[in-house]
Amino acid sequence: MNKYRVYGDMLSGNCYKIAMLLEFMGVSYDWEAVDVLSGYTQSPEFKQLNANAKIPLLEITDSEAGGKEYLSESNAILNYLAEGSEYLPAAGLARGRVLQWQFFEQYSHEPYIAVARFIKHFLGLPTERQGEFASKQAGGHKALAIMDAQLSRTPYLAGEGLTIADISLYAYTHVAPDGGFDLTEYANILAWMARIEALPNYLPMQNNIAD
Amino acid sequence: MNKYRVYGDMLSGNCYKIAMLLEFMGVSYDWEAVDVLSGYTQSPEFKQLNANAKIPLLEITDSEAGGKEYLSESNAILNYLAEGSEYLPAAGLARGRVLQWQFFEQYSHEPYIAVARFIKHFLGLPTERQGEFASKQAGGHKALAIMDAQLSRTPYLAGEGLTIADISLYAYTHVAPDGGFDLTEYANILAWMARIEALPNYLPMQNNIAD
Repeated sequence: MNKYRVYGDMLSGNCYKIAMLLEFMGVSYDWEAVDVLSGYTQSPEFKQLNANAKIPLLEITDSEAGGKEYLSESNAILNYLAEGSEYLPAAGLARGRVLQWQFFEQYSHEPYIAVARFIKHFLGLPTERQGEFASKQAGGHKALAIMDAQLSRTPYLAGEGLTIADISLYAYTHVAPDGGFDLTEYANILAWMARIEALPNYLPMQNNIAD
Repeated sequence: MNKYRVYGDMLSGNCYKIAMLLEFMGVSYDWEAVDVLSGYTQSPEFKQLNANAKIPLLEITDSEAGGKEYLSESNAILNYLAEGSEYLPAAGLARGRVLQWQFFEQYSHEPYIAVARFIKHFLGLPTERQGEFASKQAGGHKALAIMDAQLSRTPYLAGEGLTIADISLYAYTHVAPDGGFDLTEYANILAWMARIEALPNYLPMQNNIAD
């Protein structure tokens, strides 16, 4: 039996994904709160655990052998934890589709929507970053339109049931308004978010430093 | 039995990954050459196949049922094709590590190294993009240093044997000098590239429009 400890910050969508899945799965875990704005992930101590200096980081302790292992990259962690569960198809094209959405998330969604949210919501849209903020809008809307079209055909991104693809995309999509994205034009996304939020064991995200 | 057709451009590292794996696996496939610089991927016709308007795109034809399915995102395609082979561990942490490297590739490597290569090698480093080009160097070297440290400990990124993690990272790493990255300071990366290039059925990349 493995024990899990998650190094994360609940203000980060990438970290929130991990907690969201573990709550849906009913798996117990320790949460090691890391302040992502403090610079701790850049410390030599943390870089020993993750050379890429990022959270979330999953610490896996084998209860019998006792050794600790570390896994980084939010979507890799989701795949590792969801293996064998209803949240990740066992193989084939269904599994490929889950990964397709997760790589889409990291390349075509997060760099626009999460970064715009960070600049506006946490930094307060400083003058010197307004150009960068504006440059994120078109790419973010393109990603949202692609999701909305899929969700007009299936209730969840990879088909009939919730998978880790939905968890990956929900994390930053549901706080996209904090990045200046109006979601009211995406009816299928709104319905999908409501569907996820009505599921048993749904965990809300912490979205403000004061929360 | 599935038949595979790959929509790709051999000048693109993301497309090259797919051909490289299929050659290593000895699986036959059709290559549908798409000129990535022509704008064809933005056409309504192509967007019917991939709403995200990108290559590579895998077309899967079920020889018995006859229907066609499409899968996008280079690393999702690699996972789909490698399932059950020596190039992708079946489950557990070994599989998680492969995905960790692939998500690292798409977020922390490709946006620096592939984009710098594109600006310098294909666009000829135009004046208006020199600032952007310069901004890619630090992130690219950070990614290369992380790879080099891992390759000082294991012969391949995810352990003792070649996996799709190596294929994902090799694609743009071995042409990094075209993006202005000097690889001579990364001895472990150089040894790893030579190891891959010596494997049976290794497919070289096309790196110049005139090739």
